[in-house]
Amino acid sequence: MARTTLSGFPEWLPEQRIVEQRILEVVASSFELFGYTNIETRSIEPLETLMSKGETSKEVYRVSRLNAPESDNRAKQLGLRFDLTVPFARYVLENAAALSFPFKRYQIQKVWRGERPQDGRAREFTQADIDVVGQETLPFHYEVEVPLVMAEAFARLAPLGLPPVRILANNRKLSQGFYTAHGITNVDATLRIVDKLNKIGPAQVGEQLVEHVGLSRAQADAVIGLAQIRGSIADIEAGLGRYSIDDELYQQGHHELLDLLEQCERLSPGVVQGDLAIARGLDYYTGSVYESVLVGHENLGSICSGGRYDSLASDGRRSYPGVGMSIGITRILMRIFGQNLLVADRSVPTVVLVALEDEESRPQADMTAKSLRDRGIPTEVAPAAARYGKQLKYAIRRNIPFVYFTDSGSIKDIRTAEQVAVDILTWSPDEAARRPQINADGAQESV
Amino acid sequence: MARTTLSGFPEWLPEQRIVEQRILEVVASSFELFGYTNIETRSIEPLETLMSKGETSKEVYRVSRLNAPESDNRAKQLGLRFDLTVPFARYVLENAAALSFPFKRYQIQKVWRGERPQDGRAREFTQADIDVVGQETLPFHYEVEVPLVMAEAFARLAPLGLPPVRILANNRKLSQGFYTAHGITNVDATLRIVDKLNKIGPAQVGEQLVEHVGLSRAQADAVIGLAQIRGSIADIEAGLGRYSIDDELYQQGHHELLDLLEQCERLSPGVVQGDLAIARGLDYYTGSVYESVLVGHENLGSICSGGRYDSLASDGRRSYPGVGMSIGITRILMRIFGQNLLVADRSVPTVVLVALEDEESRPQADMTAKSLRDRGIPTEVAPAAARYGKQLKYAIRRNIPFVYFTDSGSIKDIRTAEQVAVDILTWSPDEAARRPQINADGAQESV
Repeated sequence: MARTTLSGFPEWLPEQRIVEQRILEVVASSFELFGYTNIETRSIEPLETLMSKGETSKEVYRVSRLNAPESDNRAKQLGLRFDLTVPFARYVLENAAALSFPFKRYQIQKVWRGERPQDGRAREFTQADIDVVGQETLPFHYEVEVPLVMAEAFARLAPLGLPPVRILANNRKLSQGFYTAHGITNVDATLRIVDKLNKIGPAQVGEQLVEHVGLSRAQADAVIGLAQIRGSIADIEAGLGRYSIDDELYQQGHHELLDLLEQCERLSPGVVQGDLAIARGLDYYTGSVYESVLVGHENLGSICSGGRYDSLASDGRRSYPGVGMSIGITRILMRIFGQNLLVADRSVPTVVLVALEDEESRPQADMTAKSLRDRGIPTEVAPAAARYGKQLKYAIRRNIPFVYFTDSGSIKDIRTAEQVAVDILTWSPDEAARRPQINADGAQESV
Repeated sequence: MARTTLSGFPEWLPEQRIVEQRILEVVASSFELFGYTNIETRSIEPLETLMSKGETSKEVYRVSRLNAPESDNRAKQLGLRFDLTVPFARYVLENAAALSFPFKRYQIQKVWRGERPQDGRAREFTQADIDVVGQETLPFHYEVEVPLVMAEAFARLAPLGLPPVRILANNRKLSQGFYTAHGITNVDATLRIVDKLNKIGPAQVGEQLVEHVGLSRAQADAVIGLAQIRGSIADIEAGLGRYSIDDELYQQGHHELLDLLEQCERLSPGVVQGDLAIARGLDYYTGSVYESVLVGHENLGSICSGGRYDSLASDGRRSYPGVGMSIGITRILMRIFGQNLLVADRSVPTVVLVALEDEESRPQADMTAKSLRDRGIPTEVAPAAARYGKQLKYAIRRNIPFVYFTDSGSIKDIRTAEQVAVDILTWSPDEAARRPQINADGAQESV
């Protein structure tokens, strides 16, 4: 079999996968604390479903049966999902009769995009999404809840050693009302350029607004002035205080953004800030929009984004407005492993290795292992009755914390090299040994 | 967006997904108890990797970038994995320097096959695999461990209401040695036909052995006679006692099969039986082979299969022998949901719904919800301050067990309709309410 590394398809070693598993476990349980229920959708969608939101065709992977007649493959053109939102919208429409609304779901699955692989971007990657979807209506307070759920998830990840996260919020109504009040008609094109402010700076944004969208210099300056407002509630209030905009949409967006910041500050202090440059390229957002950065790793780009949408899904009779955010799990992991930020202290779940005196004692060792497992303690029996030094090495290589010797009825803690006699039928490991620990620094290994 | 159901791509409702999650959780923790560590591999492999084990080309989905030049797509032809074994073998070769052998891994991921969808067969489905892989050598005792791990996983699933599982074992060496001793040279072709014994019966198997493999009538009868031996150790011993085969491979297989049955009986009584018709179509198996049936659902086919292989992976210098089994999670779920065998008693993780007196009290309700979540109790706040009857309905529809009323400081158990005053800061739910319960009978709902 050929060895072939495909660029853009990251795979993790077991000790890295343990870090990923722990992160996903924390994230999922945080979502569940807020009543979000899990679903999965199929990986493959009809191309027409995938393309219905435009702009993404160049990134889509097509899927066809290798040996089916080309006419079959043409009749039903299929592709791999490139996000979890489009398949979720389709799932909601398909199952609307069986679901209860507002429907709060989380979804943690892989998505595929044929992008050029680069730092933070992969072609296959895992997203962790939450969305709340209503039937016809969805109250504003869910636009506050969604970033709070994410803030809670990140707060629960911090003890593992993940850098803190700052969630940045804006409101599309505010920007849109502001633009309209300034006589700007091409709102979507303006937003798409404003979205690049943090990347390319105000000078270039101004140039592009004038050249590509046809704004006047004064309009462009106003747009940039608004987009440069950011910070705490006080900063946002001060920044917006300079304007007196007589536009209903603007007023509504202004009220919603400050309401969101205030409530987030009350329930999750110091996490959510305003940033009026946040625009999100996708044109289906209609209210709050969010991005998030890992503090100290801002150059990684947003690791958790989303917003409010009024009409992502509609079956013609009913509309399904929603609000959601999506964590870029793989993007975070690429940084974590690339810079060795987090590491698991062992590569296996095993807590105890039962050493073997000789092959004849394997049945007895198997029974000992069974009794440990029956009490929930992951246990292996040595692969062979080699000399004890070699059996110890099996444990040390994997950082299995304990080795039990049946002949002497004693257990060795390989972290301290201490060996004591125990009654293995009642012995229990210390809490830190029960499962692999995640350390915040790759250099500091536990053994 | 078009509504489009793709046949062969099952999706579950939230209450079904809860059943799947619980099953996967039990399976994964069982694997970990034996020291198996988790990995995931990318979904996409070069076609040449996928095709290197033959016979599967007609089922493979090809993947290509929609808007890339066809020359790019031709240069690196890619496909979706159709099992977890081939990608695992590639992973082991790629990462051999970073792994410790014997390497025990589990992997729970989706695979894709363009087969005709039918009962028990989907085009996208989840497999849960364990494998032990050695470098150059792998002791026989892992061929005993692997079915024991599966037996443990199924034993732990039984309390959820999953029907019991019978694991059936055979040994390729035994069959192969037997065939050779009877002058049969085309062993693989013979095995492939014997594999169909339970489906098409001895008469047709005999016919095919004569017609397609060119066996004599006497050879075919001998092959069928062997394949009809099945049952407990005593049954197998009695069945094989009729033969006196002077073939080293046969003797070795005979010894291994009885050893396996004996040890399995000792450590997991009543689960593993011998069945000499088990052949497994794939020609890379070289020792023990396994299939499993859900008792009472034998017509579903095997739900957990695998075997010992000596040369699945090789980098030219070193070989990596292994043994593994794979649970067909989706196949089991299709039966469970098709016959309503298991059901979750609610569709959400939520334990408490905090009711709202009016919209003004939402901030207080949010704080109450936060304090419950801080103690690990999944909590939602009512979507709107509607009349209490309507808020109760929100809980009842989802079978959320408790509704807390802030104004009266009382909690209502919707399972009993009892309402009592509580101190919500110290209140805890009963154990059964903490998370959705899986019931063994779809008819018996908990509310």
